[in-house]
Amino acid sequence: MVRTLITGGLVITAADEVHADVLIEHGRVVALAAPGTQNWTADRVIDASRKYVIPGGVDAHTHMELPFGGTFASDTFETGTRAAAWGGTTTIVDFAVQSRGQALRAGLDAWMEKADGNCAIDYAFHMIMSDVNEATLREMPKLVEAGVSSFKLFMAYPGVFYSDDGQILRAMQVAGDTGGLIMMHAENGIAIDVLVEQALARGETDPRYHGEVRKALLEAEATHRAIQLARVAGSPLYVVHVSAEEAVAQLAAARDMDLPVFGETCPQYLFLSTDNLAEPDFEGAKYVCSTPLRPKEHQAALWRGLRTNDLQVVSTDHCPFCFSGQKELGRGDFSKIPNGLPGVENRMDLLHQAVVDGHISRRRWIEIACATPARMFGLSPRKGTIAPGSDADVVIYDPHATQVLSAETHHMNVDYSAYEGKTVTGRVETVLSRGEVVVDRREYVGRAGHGAFLPRGLCQYLG
Amino acid sequence: MVRTLITGGLVITAADEVHADVLIEHGRVVALAAPGTQNWTADRVIDASRKYVIPGGVDAHTHMELPFGGTFASDTFETGTRAAAWGGTTTIVDFAVQSRGQALRAGLDAWMEKADGNCAIDYAFHMIMSDVNEATLREMPKLVEAGVSSFKLFMAYPGVFYSDDGQILRAMQVAGDTGGLIMMHAENGIAIDVLVEQALARGETDPRYHGEVRKALLEAEATHRAIQLARVAGSPLYVVHVSAEEAVAQLAAARDMDLPVFGETCPQYLFLSTDNLAEPDFEGAKYVCSTPLRPKEHQAALWRGLRTNDLQVVSTDHCPFCFSGQKELGRGDFSKIPNGLPGVENRMDLLHQAVVDGHISRRRWIEIACATPARMFGLSPRKGTIAPGSDADVVIYDPHATQVLSAETHHMNVDYSAYEGKTVTGRVETVLSRGEVVVDRREYVGRAGHGAFLPRGLCQYLG
Amino acid sequence: MVRTLITGGLVITAADEVHADVLIEHGRVVALAAPGTQNWTADRVIDASRKYVIPGGVDAHTHMELPFGGTFASDTFETGTRAAAWGGTTTIVDFAVQSRGQALRAGLDAWMEKADGNCAIDYAFHMIMSDVNEATLREMPKLVEAGVSSFKLFMAYPGVFYSDDGQILRAMQVAGDTGGLIMMHAENGIAIDVLVEQALARGETDPRYHGEVRKALLEAEATHRAIQLARVAGSPLYVVHVSAEEAVAQLAAARDMDLPVFGETCPQYLFLSTDNLAEPDFEGAKYVCSTPLRPKEHQAALWRGLRTNDLQVVSTDHCPFCFSGQKELGRGDFSKIPNGLPGVENRMDLLHQAVVDGHISRRRWIEIACATPARMFGLSPRKGTIAPGSDADVVIYDPHATQVLSAETHHMNVDYSAYEGKTVTGRVETVLSRGEVVVDRREYVGRAGHGAFLPRGLCQYLG
Amino acid sequence: MVRTLITGGLVITAADEVHADVLIEHGRVVALAAPGTQNWTADRVIDASRKYVIPGGVDAHTHMELPFGGTFASDTFETGTRAAAWGGTTTIVDFAVQSRGQALRAGLDAWMEKADGNCAIDYAFHMIMSDVNEATLREMPKLVEAGVSSFKLFMAYPGVFYSDDGQILRAMQVAGDTGGLIMMHAENGIAIDVLVEQALARGETDPRYHGEVRKALLEAEATHRAIQLARVAGSPLYVVHVSAEEAVAQLAAARDMDLPVFGETCPQYLFLSTDNLAEPDFEGAKYVCSTPLRPKEHQAALWRGLRTNDLQVVSTDHCPFCFSGQKELGRGDFSKIPNGLPGVENRMDLLHQAVVDGHISRRRWIEIACATPARMFGLSPRKGTIAPGSDADVVIYDPHATQVLSAETHHMNVDYSAYEGKTVTGRVETVLSRGEVVVDRREYVGRAGHGAFLPRGLCQYLG
Repeated sequence: MVRTLITGGLVITAADEVHADVLIEHGRVVALAAPGTQNWTADRVIDASRKYVIPGGVDAHTHMELPFGGTFASDTFETGTRAAAWGGTTTIVDFAVQSRGQALRAGLDAWMEKADGNCAIDYAFHMIMSDVNEATLREMPKLVEAGVSSFKLFMAYPGVFYSDDGQILRAMQVAGDTGGLIMMHAENGIAIDVLVEQALARGETDPRYHGEVRKALLEAEATHRAIQLARVAGSPLYVVHVSAEEAVAQLAAARDMDLPVFGETCPQYLFLSTDNLAEPDFEGAKYVCSTPLRPKEHQAALWRGLRTNDLQVVSTDHCPFCFSGQKELGRGDFSKIPNGLPGVENRMDLLHQAVVDGHISRRRWIEIACATPARMFGLSPRKGTIAPGSDADVVIYDPHATQVLSAETHHMNVDYSAYEGKTVTGRVETVLSRGEVVVDRREYVGRAGHGAFLPRGLCQYLG
Repeated sequence: MVRTLITGGLVITAADEVHADVLIEHGRVVALAAPGTQNWTADRVIDASRKYVIPGGVDAHTHMELPFGGTFASDTFETGTRAAAWGGTTTIVDFAVQSRGQALRAGLDAWMEKADGNCAIDYAFHMIMSDVNEATLREMPKLVEAGVSSFKLFMAYPGVFYSDDGQILRAMQVAGDTGGLIMMHAENGIAIDVLVEQALARGETDPRYHGEVRKALLEAEATHRAIQLARVAGSPLYVVHVSAEEAVAQLAAARDMDLPVFGETCPQYLFLSTDNLAEPDFEGAKYVCSTPLRPKEHQAALWRGLRTNDLQVVSTDHCPFCFSGQKELGRGDFSKIPNGLPGVENRMDLLHQAVVDGHISRRRWIEIACATPARMFGLSPRKGTIAPGSDADVVIYDPHATQVLSAETHHMNVDYSAYEGKTVTGRVETVLSRGEVVVDRREYVGRAGHGAFLPRGLCQYLG
Repeated sequence: MVRTLITGGLVITAADEVHADVLIEHGRVVALAAPGTQNWTADRVIDASRKYVIPGGVDAHTHMELPFGGTFASDTFETGTRAAAWGGTTTIVDFAVQSRGQALRAGLDAWMEKADGNCAIDYAFHMIMSDVNEATLREMPKLVEAGVSSFKLFMAYPGVFYSDDGQILRAMQVAGDTGGLIMMHAENGIAIDVLVEQALARGETDPRYHGEVRKALLEAEATHRAIQLARVAGSPLYVVHVSAEEAVAQLAAARDMDLPVFGETCPQYLFLSTDNLAEPDFEGAKYVCSTPLRPKEHQAALWRGLRTNDLQVVSTDHCPFCFSGQKELGRGDFSKIPNGLPGVENRMDLLHQAVVDGHISRRRWIEIACATPARMFGLSPRKGTIAPGSDADVVIYDPHATQVLSAETHHMNVDYSAYEGKTVTGRVETVLSRGEVVVDRREYVGRAGHGAFLPRGLCQYLG
Repeated sequence: MVRTLITGGLVITAADEVHADVLIEHGRVVALAAPGTQNWTADRVIDASRKYVIPGGVDAHTHMELPFGGTFASDTFETGTRAAAWGGTTTIVDFAVQSRGQALRAGLDAWMEKADGNCAIDYAFHMIMSDVNEATLREMPKLVEAGVSSFKLFMAYPGVFYSDDGQILRAMQVAGDTGGLIMMHAENGIAIDVLVEQALARGETDPRYHGEVRKALLEAEATHRAIQLARVAGSPLYVVHVSAEEAVAQLAAARDMDLPVFGETCPQYLFLSTDNLAEPDFEGAKYVCSTPLRPKEHQAALWRGLRTNDLQVVSTDHCPFCFSGQKELGRGDFSKIPNGLPGVENRMDLLHQAVVDGHISRRRWIEIACATPARMFGLSPRKGTIAPGSDADVVIYDPHATQVLSAETHHMNVDYSAYEGKTVTGRVETVLSRGEVVVDRREYVGRAGHGAFLPRGLCQYLG
């Protein structure tokens, strides 16, 4: 048995900031103690003096190897989870995809196979339902039992992932009955597709038009609609990748009513804007994702939402496509640009930068990046905290180091960084996953296959 | 030339209440004068002492002879307009229906033919678009030119009248460009149909389930969605037959933002409730209409909306089906009950009762029942007021008489009254349509064919 | 008897726009007729072709000869009402002031005497209560009977006009019981005085600091407070000179709840801003009034409030002090600048300019400037409209003429214009007061003493 | 050194629920460990199997020995803190009172003396400012340095504790500058006193009229006003004893804007209502406190506010007066009833009952009763959590036991219980204060004088 001791750091959880030694055995945190009070011996002692000791990040929204628009997201489970570890994230929840006409389980099996034996860190799955029908509705409780307790639906992408309001209502009803959580891509895709067609017809083909046609009002509209459908169904709702101020307002109104409605945003919406989409020479394509980046003014609303708990989670929606060869598929037609940004490696750092910038407190950092996603998706108390009994997913974080984000140095399998050249304060130094050191003082020492599938429980954020 | 003089009454318009004599020539009001100040002579003198002299009612929402669910609304243009006249309404705006696959114009022509030569009072048409496509979108400006400047779309009734959000957006865009006004049946029909199916599967077949499945939240949702689509399109919006408090709240929010969004309610929502839908022995079927009647508590919100001008118009949505043989089609399956209530004859009286009850002022009565519908639908200043130059559509109204509403005594061609046995204070005594007496001291003296088609201008409620 | 006929104009009231001839006898409108249909003869015929024929303006907020800060408003009833007539206003409602320790009646008598025999147009009075106590509360019903049915209270000006919340509540209770209307100067004067003292202590003495210390939030706060007190008292409320967006929001919230709460704004808030207060060389003093001018962004909220009927009235708060010798009293101490602007002559023109600019419609112009103030303060139907029986207060308005506003040409007794050099489209041509021509094709032909005291009825905007 | 070990319990903090052993030395928690993993020995071992191990409660609002209305709150620091310990509360923050005309420090000294040597548990002080003036404003920073970092002001009680809006603004400005926190009793006392006088004049003297005159709207009004003044001052705000739904709405609106505005409610508002105030035979007097109890419907809003974090803290406002001899002072005049209820012993149990009833989660129970009050008032991480280094204020709580609340069995020095006869599930079993056992398996083993004064830091709930 390897016994690990982390000494002298400031242990930060969602609730507390205390100086404590952390003792790890059998992959679990077994004890915390006031520094130096216990005569603990260990096989490995990590000195965390002047460092933070934080729970490993939980990224509840990634798309490794996702097939999209005739290509695949460029990170495999192997490269993507390794990059995650580099960035201090020790759990991802990826999305298994049901193919239309197939069973949910078949989709889950396919994704289990993609991940199996390849992951550097633990992983779990949500289920994308492409086809809500009698058969798939019947399958939902079985998926919940199998540890896949959340189901993603799309109000966007007609003809691809789109579900109509009747399908959504039915899936919500089943979710409400079985404890499943519906995750919603909330954009009015039917209306957006009209605007896309009209824009292209007017010759507006550059990436920036992607941002113009996917209007904030149409995100807010869909958000409102999803909330009302959830009320009718009596089910909770989790809205993914919220980017528009008007959508935050819908969530805030629902929260004021004490509805079980939750919202996630992503670093790209907090740090990037339509200015990036408008970068010349098709560079804007790097920033094409849906919901789209918004004008800078929306950022303040997102930060406010994170502070007021109208937004509860920051995930990445990590879905990288290389500029060269992939993003370029959309030259001359923005609607053909694969949607998605890389980010799984950058999330913990960018949110620490937000602490430095005064947007959020340290505890809130851990809450939105670790604790709440773990609870939201049934992984608590194993993940998202540092407490006796929890998995020893621990990050030694240096809050004083600075680094420059760049494709030159990042570990994601993609040929650009969305944050190229940005200097941030704070850096992951050492990462443990279930007690094993994966990154050791900025050297990767992990291995594909260490990461295990996590069957999840129900959402723990309710009642 | 017949010259008519109405003396001694209290002339009430949306703005003023003044004692005045009214002089009529050539079907128009030519002058108003302080009582007795002019030595006017006339062929016919009507003594209106102790009476109100009000503009004839404008009912902006009727469905004479509407084919629905395999049957037809039981009032023809002849019987329906005669009943309207009896009730003090001198203008109706009915709905011509496009058949799927046909041109709008074909639908209009069909309805013009139904009405031609049959009407006791003047009439105009809105156009129901069953099929928004390139061809019908191109037709819209031509309809506007032809005096049909408003277009009704349905978010309910999938497979029948339903338009999806893309179709709605396109139609709104054209309306915004050409001055047309989109009228919306705002209920989420896709979601409602799921609830209908589930209710029937549970054996919930009685009329009252009609009210339960068509949830207030799904009316409010659709209202919100329509407003957002109109904002995206840059077009005005008129929401028909608003019945739910939550939908009024959506309109109020839009009004607070100064959006060109308007709302109509109907007497049935102001005076009836789900208590009626729950009447035993299938009697509830008499009250089946969509949007449905709501629990009594919603009435206060509707009255408040009318006072605060968040609702601007009261129309009837007159669409009668006999209980016997028609409503009965839905025995054992509420979804087969033809949707609609009779009401064209009762509107002015019920709203006067609201004056008596203290819900609204006398001027507001005229505003919501005459002046605003006329302006909303491009009929001002010919209709909706009494002023020099306006059509002499004038009602002598006795505010002191009482009457009992009943199928025994009403003139609509339907075998029941939705207000059977209700006593109201106030009664139409004499009605003029373009200067001709149609009802003379409670004797019908009009004739089919007097009523003329009114080509309408654009909505006058904007800018 | 002089019989006057106005022919060929477009008669605009709050409800209608019709071409009509207007016949006037005995100081009253006796008839309106479609042009040329009546063979009316008259002693005087005014050709209004291509002109508007509108009700004379009703300015519900003026302060002629007001003692303030050791000086007097520079317009007497004679000069002020003459200027009003020049500007198309035919009724003012001025404020009689109770002196502390004196009876209300004594204040009214004093003001009646100032006005008597001096006015060019009709006038009425509100009562400023400087001292709410048992005696003055008992006097209120008597004032109402005497035609002074509205009472102004101040939440500002501690030690001068200020009433505390208990006094306000008591006065509201009496108003609620007797039909009187409470008018409120809504600014938290207690808090403002702290900020004034602190600003002066910091050496911030220029006029622009007047705008900074009288914070928008403190206007909104007082507005909210007044509304809640009125709710507790069960009384209506009229908030004077609303200038801040946040205060409009409070009124809108109250209106959404259907509370009998009304709001007035003034041309200076619609057309001027803190930019004017910041004019160099103490010129900013010309624009010192309370509530203060706000940053330009607030103007949009005020226009929106006027369109949505969250604001119902535009009055002037006309209270002129000459720059030379009066405004100058505050050199070196903004708190000593007499508060007030001239404007009684400019209101109708500036609001017509708003029609030209697209802010409001023509009918809304008449509504906010004539019809609603008349109804709000119990002067309808004599004032505020053109209808058989109404007072023949009529303005022939040329909507095509342009003019440049200037102290050089205006008729107010003040040495500057707040709108110096501003070009507006539209000009008063001829003005009748109770049938007598006061301004004849831009020549003043009126006389001091023509104007009569108007005992007012109760607010007609309720129930 | 006494070394204590608590084994086998479920440790609940605001963030986590984990089974852990807790090791205590020198009055502090030194370590937590997964059960049985450490071979810890101890002088005292407490078996917490099947029990909760929770942080000792922090009651941030008590009034021991408060002079009020000519009498004194009946609990001394000795009896009151002993009762607190019995109820699982290990820290109180009481209110030192400045006497008008005296220095703040003098008031603090007086209260320090009352408490010194008498307390069973730790205690701290807020400062009631009865007299905001230049001298006391200058004292505020010194109080903050002395560990009294919060200042209570009253918008109620004119002539006693009342501060006007100018005084409030000034105190807020100083608080904003020095990190002090203003606590507000938010009721419009000026208006309420008018209603009190009028009620008494009408002969409405029973206790229930206390609830009627202190209107919910006047609490909401004052809450709104305090928020706006805090915005002007740029300071945070903590509103005490929120009881009205409308006041919660004001806080929610402020929270949506991300303002540093906080709200506290009390068990009496959550569990009692105006029904209690209306109890016959003057029994209602037992429930007289200010803000008053509200109609039952308000309770749902308070629970909702606690769930949505629009309310952050539940304190007791413990201020007991015996029915006999004290409450009876107000027979025949409700305004003479001493204001206050006993409750310091019941809070933790009542809130656990709320967990049982499904109003809040277990973690939220600890958050609102322990963690947040500690952070809000600068006592974290010593108080409010169980973590390495925190004070060993620990409660062993039996969630399965039931008890009946009663004056027969309670330990507060007052002759009635506000919850007489109420059965609750859950009971304090053992209580440690800084490692010393105060209550041992429901036997009191503490001592007066164990409790120490806690100099507090600044509010830790801000940015």
